[in-house]
Amino acid sequence: MPNPSLLLYGPGDARFEDRPMPVIEDPLDVIIRIAYVGVCGSDVHFWNHGGVKAHVSKERPLVMGHEASGIVKEVGPAVISLQPGDRIAIEPGSACRVCSRCKAGTYHLCPRMEFAANPPYTHGTLSRYYKMPADCCYKIPDSVGTAFGLDEAVLIEPLAVAVHSVRQVAVRPGDKVVVFGAGTVGLLSAAVAREFGASVVTSVDLSREKLDFAQSFVPRGRLVFSTAIPDQTLPPEENAQSLRGMQRSAHLAESDIPGFDVAIEATGAESCIQMAVYALRVGGRFVQTGLGKRIVNFPISTVSENEITVKGCFRYGPGDFKMALELALSQKIELRPLITKIVPFENVIDAWETAKRGEGIKTLIRGADLAENFESGL
Amino acid sequence: MPNPSLLLYGPGDARFEDRPMPVIEDPLDVIIRIAYVGVCGSDVHFWNHGGVKAHVSKERPLVMGHEASGIVKEVGPAVISLQPGDRIAIEPGSACRVCSRCKAGTYHLCPRMEFAANPPYTHGTLSRYYKMPADCCYKIPDSVGTAFGLDEAVLIEPLAVAVHSVRQVAVRPGDKVVVFGAGTVGLLSAAVAREFGASVVTSVDLSREKLDFAQSFVPRGRLVFSTAIPDQTLPPEENAQSLRGMQRSAHLAESDIPGFDVAIEATGAESCIQMAVYALRVGGRFVQTGLGKRIVNFPISTVSENEITVKGCFRYGPGDFKMALELALSQKIELRPLITKIVPFENVIDAWETAKRGEGIKTLIRGADLAENFESGL
Amino acid sequence: MPNPSLLLYGPGDARFEDRPMPVIEDPLDVIIRIAYVGVCGSDVHFWNHGGVKAHVSKERPLVMGHEASGIVKEVGPAVISLQPGDRIAIEPGSACRVCSRCKAGTYHLCPRMEFAANPPYTHGTLSRYYKMPADCCYKIPDSVGTAFGLDEAVLIEPLAVAVHSVRQVAVRPGDKVVVFGAGTVGLLSAAVAREFGASVVTSVDLSREKLDFAQSFVPRGRLVFSTAIPDQTLPPEENAQSLRGMQRSAHLAESDIPGFDVAIEATGAESCIQMAVYALRVGGRFVQTGLGKRIVNFPISTVSENEITVKGCFRYGPGDFKMALELALSQKIELRPLITKIVPFENVIDAWETAKRGEGIKTLIRGADLAENFESGL
Amino acid sequence: MPNPSLLLYGPGDARFEDRPMPVIEDPLDVIIRIAYVGVCGSDVHFWNHGGVKAHVSKERPLVMGHEASGIVKEVGPAVISLQPGDRIAIEPGSACRVCSRCKAGTYHLCPRMEFAANPPYTHGTLSRYYKMPADCCYKIPDSVGTAFGLDEAVLIEPLAVAVHSVRQVAVRPGDKVVVFGAGTVGLLSAAVAREFGASVVTSVDLSREKLDFAQSFVPRGRLVFSTAIPDQTLPPEENAQSLRGMQRSAHLAESDIPGFDVAIEATGAESCIQMAVYALRVGGRFVQTGLGKRIVNFPISTVSENEITVKGCFRYGPGDFKMALELALSQKIELRPLITKIVPFENVIDAWETAKRGEGIKTLIRGADLAENFESGL
Repeated sequence: MPNPSLLLYGPGDARFEDRPMPVIEDPLDVIIRIAYVGVCGSDVHFWNHGGVKAHVSKERPLVMGHEASGIVKEVGPAVISLQPGDRIAIEPGSACRVCSRCKAGTYHLCPRMEFAANPPYTHGTLSRYYKMPADCCYKIPDSVGTAFGLDEAVLIEPLAVAVHSVRQVAVRPGDKVVVFGAGTVGLLSAAVAREFGASVVTSVDLSREKLDFAQSFVPRGRLVFSTAIPDQTLPPEENAQSLRGMQRSAHLAESDIPGFDVAIEATGAESCIQMAVYALRVGGRFVQTGLGKRIVNFPISTVSENEITVKGCFRYGPGDFKMALELALSQKIELRPLITKIVPFENVIDAWETAKRGEGIKTLIRGADLAENFESGL
Repeated sequence: MPNPSLLLYGPGDARFEDRPMPVIEDPLDVIIRIAYVGVCGSDVHFWNHGGVKAHVSKERPLVMGHEASGIVKEVGPAVISLQPGDRIAIEPGSACRVCSRCKAGTYHLCPRMEFAANPPYTHGTLSRYYKMPADCCYKIPDSVGTAFGLDEAVLIEPLAVAVHSVRQVAVRPGDKVVVFGAGTVGLLSAAVAREFGASVVTSVDLSREKLDFAQSFVPRGRLVFSTAIPDQTLPPEENAQSLRGMQRSAHLAESDIPGFDVAIEATGAESCIQMAVYALRVGGRFVQTGLGKRIVNFPISTVSENEITVKGCFRYGPGDFKMALELALSQKIELRPLITKIVPFENVIDAWETAKRGEGIKTLIRGADLAENFESGL
Repeated sequence: MPNPSLLLYGPGDARFEDRPMPVIEDPLDVIIRIAYVGVCGSDVHFWNHGGVKAHVSKERPLVMGHEASGIVKEVGPAVISLQPGDRIAIEPGSACRVCSRCKAGTYHLCPRMEFAANPPYTHGTLSRYYKMPADCCYKIPDSVGTAFGLDEAVLIEPLAVAVHSVRQVAVRPGDKVVVFGAGTVGLLSAAVAREFGASVVTSVDLSREKLDFAQSFVPRGRLVFSTAIPDQTLPPEENAQSLRGMQRSAHLAESDIPGFDVAIEATGAESCIQMAVYALRVGGRFVQTGLGKRIVNFPISTVSENEITVKGCFRYGPGDFKMALELALSQKIELRPLITKIVPFENVIDAWETAKRGEGIKTLIRGADLAENFESGL
Repeated sequence: MPNPSLLLYGPGDARFEDRPMPVIEDPLDVIIRIAYVGVCGSDVHFWNHGGVKAHVSKERPLVMGHEASGIVKEVGPAVISLQPGDRIAIEPGSACRVCSRCKAGTYHLCPRMEFAANPPYTHGTLSRYYKMPADCCYKIPDSVGTAFGLDEAVLIEPLAVAVHSVRQVAVRPGDKVVVFGAGTVGLLSAAVAREFGASVVTSVDLSREKLDFAQSFVPRGRLVFSTAIPDQTLPPEENAQSLRGMQRSAHLAESDIPGFDVAIEATGAESCIQMAVYALRVGGRFVQTGLGKRIVNFPISTVSENEITVKGCFRYGPGDFKMALELALSQKIELRPLITKIVPFENVIDAWETAKRGEGIKTLIRGADLAENFESGL
C-alpha cells in the first residue's frame, strides 16, 4: 500500500515521498490512518533551521509532524481497548518503559524516548499511515460520535502541553495566575489554569489582537480575567509592578501578600521571564513552558530571596493526555475556536509559511488522500 | 452595656444571662456585634449530653455557639484591616501562635487553641457582643454590599470545614469523588470537590429527600453527578461494588483502574466508612470528616493492600476560611439555599430541638436584640 | 535441562517435581540459576492454608518462593546491563508497564502484576532456574565480589519492603518513630528509619528475646533507641501513654507536642494498631505494613481529630529495590545477622516448619543441586 | 545598666556606644546577655557597603550582628520554658504571627519580619543585652552542660541556614548531591545533606585549602565524598561533565540516568550556577543558597527541557533551628572545627577585616565585658 509522506532534508528542503507501510511487530502496536496533523512553532523552526538540538541531514531525512489524530486501521494481538475504525488522538512519543525514569512515573524524561519528528531516527506523523503502541492512542468514545471532530482531536496535543505546565506549577483553587504569551499554548494554559480553580488569570502579550482573542477564549464562570501589554520602554520590574496591581475584584478577599501565586511563561522571551519572576509573591511558583534563547539574564537573587520555585516543563507525562481529552470531550475547554484553517496534505509547506508569518492560531493539514468531509465516512 | 448570652449549664439546662461586655486587651482585638449564629450538629450533641470530649458543668456554664457572623463595633490600636461597621464572617478559634504546630502552618492542631463553646473555658458566640483577634475576622468587601448577607456569612464556617476536608484529601482535577452524607458538610464538600475540578461526584445518603436536595445543589457546569441510597440489607462490599459502577459518562475516557479516586466520609457511620474504603481504587484517598462512634470495625487489610491513604480532618486551618469566603462571594458556591429558617435569639432552644428532629438543613439564630430586617441599617 | 522445583498442591501438600526449563521469549528476558530462597511468613501461611486471598488447587499447583538471589545464566538480545555469571538480587514481580498505575510510577499497584508464587498463575522461585525481565535483576557490582554474599542478597527483598514502608510514611530527619514488631520486616523498618534520619526509634514487641536482638541490631550512630513490651492487661491507650514517655534524651530539644511523629505497624495485631494510633502526636503518620485480621476495631475518631495520616503499604515500588541494595552494599544496614540458618533445597518443608514454630529470624534454602560453598565457584 | 553596643553609621564607620537596656514589654519577651556573636559574610558586605538591599545611614545607625548565643537574664510572665541562667542559641528574627505567610508555615517570608541588623529599624546582637521572644530562644539542655559550648551555639544559625537549604531542595536518602562552595554554609549544607541520607556528596570550590578542610569535615559513615576544583579555562558545560563522572563507587548500583540528583549552590557565582544546572540529571533539583550578582546568565532552556526544579532559599523557617540544634547536640554534626578564632568585643572591626581577607572559616566575637573563660561561671 502506498504511504505518501513529507520528509525534511534540511532547511527549506521538504519532499513528498512514498514510505514503507508500517507493520505490526509488537503485540501492542496499532496502525493508524492519519486524519489531521497540526502545525506547531517547532515545525516552523525545523523548516527554517533543520532542527532544534539535533538536526536532519540530507543522508537522514525525516518525516515531519507530531500533533495528530487518526483512525485505527489495524491492531496487534494484545490490544483490547481499540479496534479498527476507532477515532483517536495520538500521543506522539513512546518511552522505553524499563528505565528508572519510566518506572518512577516520569516517562517523558526517558532518555530513550522515541518522539515523532525527532532527529535523527524517529519519523513524524505527516504520512498516510503511522504506527504507535496502543497506550499512546486515546480513543474518542463511540457515544460522542462526530460531535467531537478529529480536527479538534489534533489540539489534544498542545492541550496536554498546557495541562503538563499547569500541573508542573501546581495551580490550585484560588490561585492568581499570570500567563505570558497568548499563542496556542499560552491560551490553553490560561484555560487549564481556570479549570484547576484559579480565581484570577491575567494574560500578557505584545499583540492586542491575540489578547482580544484571549478575552473571548479564556473567561468562563466566575474567573476574574484581564489582559496586559507590557510597555517595552520600561524595565521588567516596572511592568511587573503594573501587573501586580491588576487583580482587584469585588469577590476576592484582599490579600495581605502582594503578587501572583503562579506565573506560566509561554514565550521564552527574556523580558517576559524577568517580568514573571518580579510579578510573583514571596513563595510564588514559575514554570518555563515556552522555549526561546538557551541562556537568558535571570534575576536569581530575587528567586532566592523570595523563595520562588522555578519548574521546567518538557512535553507531557503520565495522565496529561487523558486529562486533556476529558477537558475537551466535556467541553470544559473548547478547541475548535483555535483552528484557523485546514489545508490539504499537499499544501503543508504553505501552512508552514503561514505559521512563519504568525497568521492565525492553529493551522491543520488534512491527512493524505482525504476528502474535505471525510469524517462522516472515511 | 448589656451583653445578653445563652449559657449551657448541663444537658437540657440552658439559661439566658447578662455577661460582662468584652473589652479590648490585645492591640489586635476586635469587638463584634453578633448578627447571626448557626445551629450545628455538635450544638445538639451538647444540648443532649453537655459536651463531646469535655463537658460543661453547673459550676462552669458555657456560652454556646460557634458558627457566626457580625458587625465590627470596636478595634484595637494595631488593627488596620478593619473598622467599626465592617461586616464580617467569624473564624471562631484562636491559636497560641508560638508553638511548633502554629509555626509549622497547622494552627488548628495547636494544643492551646481557644475555640468557641469549648469546655471548660472558651465561651461561644451566642452573645450580643464577642471578641476575636483581627485575623479571625473576615471582612465582606464593601463593594459587595448587602448582596452577600450576614445570614449567608454564617455558612462560611461549615464551608471552611468542607474546604479543609477537600484539601486534606487533595481533590485534584479529573478526580472521581464519592461523598458519604448529604447534610450541610457533605453537601458543601461535594460542591467544593466540584470547584476543585472533580469530574465525577456521587453523593450517598439514606434519605431520598436529602439526595433530592443534593441533586439541586451540587451539579453545575460539566460535573457528572449521581446519587445513591445504599441497600442496608447488603454488606458494605456489595454496596461499594454498585457505587463503583456509577461513574460512566460519554465525556470520560474509560479508566483502566476501577474505583473512586477519593472518598469523603461525612457521616461517621461504620457501614459508610467501610463502604468508602471498598469503593476506592488502588492508591485512592479517604478523609474522615464526620464524627460518630469513636471506634469502628475497619478494613485495615484493604487499606494496606490497596495502598489507600486515610486522612483525619479537624476543623479548618490556614487559608481555609479565606478560600471559603471567596467561593461564596464569587457565587461559585451559593449558600443561601442551605438556610432553612431564621429564628430570633430567644428561640435558640426551639432551634436546637428542630435540629435534633433532623428537620431542614441549617437553622440560624438572629443576634440578640436585632430586628428582622436589621441588615440594611443596624 | 532438568529444572527441579517445589510445588504446592494444597495445605500441607508440597511435592518436588521437574518443571520445563524457562526460555528467552522477550528480548529483555533473563534466565537465572537460583542461589538462595528465603522463607517468609506468607510461605508458612500458604503451607498452612493454601493461600492468602487466592489459593492453590490440586488442578493448578504452584511453585513456591519469592525472596531469592541467583546467578545469571542467559540473557535476551536487548539486555545490556547483565551478562552470564553476574550475581543478582531478584525483584520477584513483573508489571504490565502500560496501564495507568504503571505509567504513573506505581507499578506495584498494577492490576496485571505477575508476582512470584501468586495463585493461580505465577510460579515462584523454588526452582533450579527462573526467568525475569532484566529490570527486575539487581546486579551485585563485580567490584564488591563475594564480600557481599548471595545469601545476604536474598534479604534485599524484605529490606525493600521496609524501604517501601518507611517511604510510604515519609520518615524525615529528626522524626521520632515507633515500630510495632521485631521480626524481619519490623527490624529492617527500624533500621531503615534510622538511615532516613530518625532521631528516636522505639521497637515494641511481646518477645523479650526479639527485643534483645533488636537492641543489638538497630542502634547505630547517634540514634536514641529503646524497646518496650506492652502490658497486655492494660488498654491500648495506657500502653500508648507509656510509650510516649520513652523518648527523653540529653541531645533532643524538648518538644512542645507530645507523641511520636511516625508509627510503623508491622504486626497486624489489633491491639498494636490501636496502640500505634494513640501513641502518635497530632498530625502524626501511621503505616500498616504487617497483615493480620482483615477487619479490626479502629479508633477512627482519634485519627480524625488528631489529623493522623494512615497509609497502606503493598510490597515495593519504583526505586525501593535499588535503595535496599545500596543500603546493604554500603553496609549501612547489615543483613547477615538476620540469617539464622541455611538448609539444602530438599529440606524446604523442614524450613517452613521451623518458621511456623517462630524459631530464629530468617531461614534460607540453598538452590537446587548447589554445594554448601558454591559461591566461590559455581 | 550599661549596654555597650557596636553601631554601623555607614561603610567603614562603626562606633561603640552605650544603648538603652532592653525591657520586658510583651509577656513572652526574654532579655539575654549575649555570649558570642559570629562574623558572617553579610557583615563584611555591610562594613564595605553599608547594607545589601536597604542601607544604614548616619541618621539611623544600626547595631550589627545576627549570629549569636547568650544566657537568659530575665523572662516575661508568660515564659514557662526558660529561666534566668539558661544557655541559649538565638534565632535572630521575629515575625508578625498574624499574616497569611506566618499562619501558612512560612514565617520567614513574613513581610513584617524584624530581623537582627536589618536596616533601617531592627538592631542586631552586638550588644551586651538583647531582647527576643521566647520561641526564638533555643535552650541548651541542662543535662548537656558545658559539653556543648556557647561558642558552638553561635554556629546553630548558619547550620539552620544549611538545614533550610537542604530541606528546600528535599534531599532524600540515596541522593547524589553536589555542593558549590566550601565556606561555612557550603560545608554545613554538605554535612546536613549527609545526615539526610545522601549517598554521594561532591564539594566544589576554587580553593584547594577549603576543599582539604571539607575532606576532613564532611565524610562520615558510608558517605561517598569527593572534591573538585573547576577548570576556569573551560566552559561550565565541560566542568559539569567532569563532575558527573565523579560518583562511581563500589557500593552504588550503577544508575541508568547520568547526573546529580541535587545541586546546592552556595557561592552565588555565575559560573557555578551554570555548572550546577548542567551537572544535574533530568528531573534534578537545584537550590540557590548563596547570594552574588542579582542577575546572572542562566541556562533556562536546560532547566525547562530537563524539568529541573530551582528553589529559592531565604534564611530559615519552622523547625530549622530546632533541627540544627539537635544535629549539633547529638554530635551528628560537630561545629567546633569551624571556629577559627575568638576575639574580644572591642576587636569586632579586626574580625571583620579578617573575614574580608577570607582568612579562616568562622570568627567569633566574645560578648561585651566577658572574660575568656566566662562560660564556667558568668
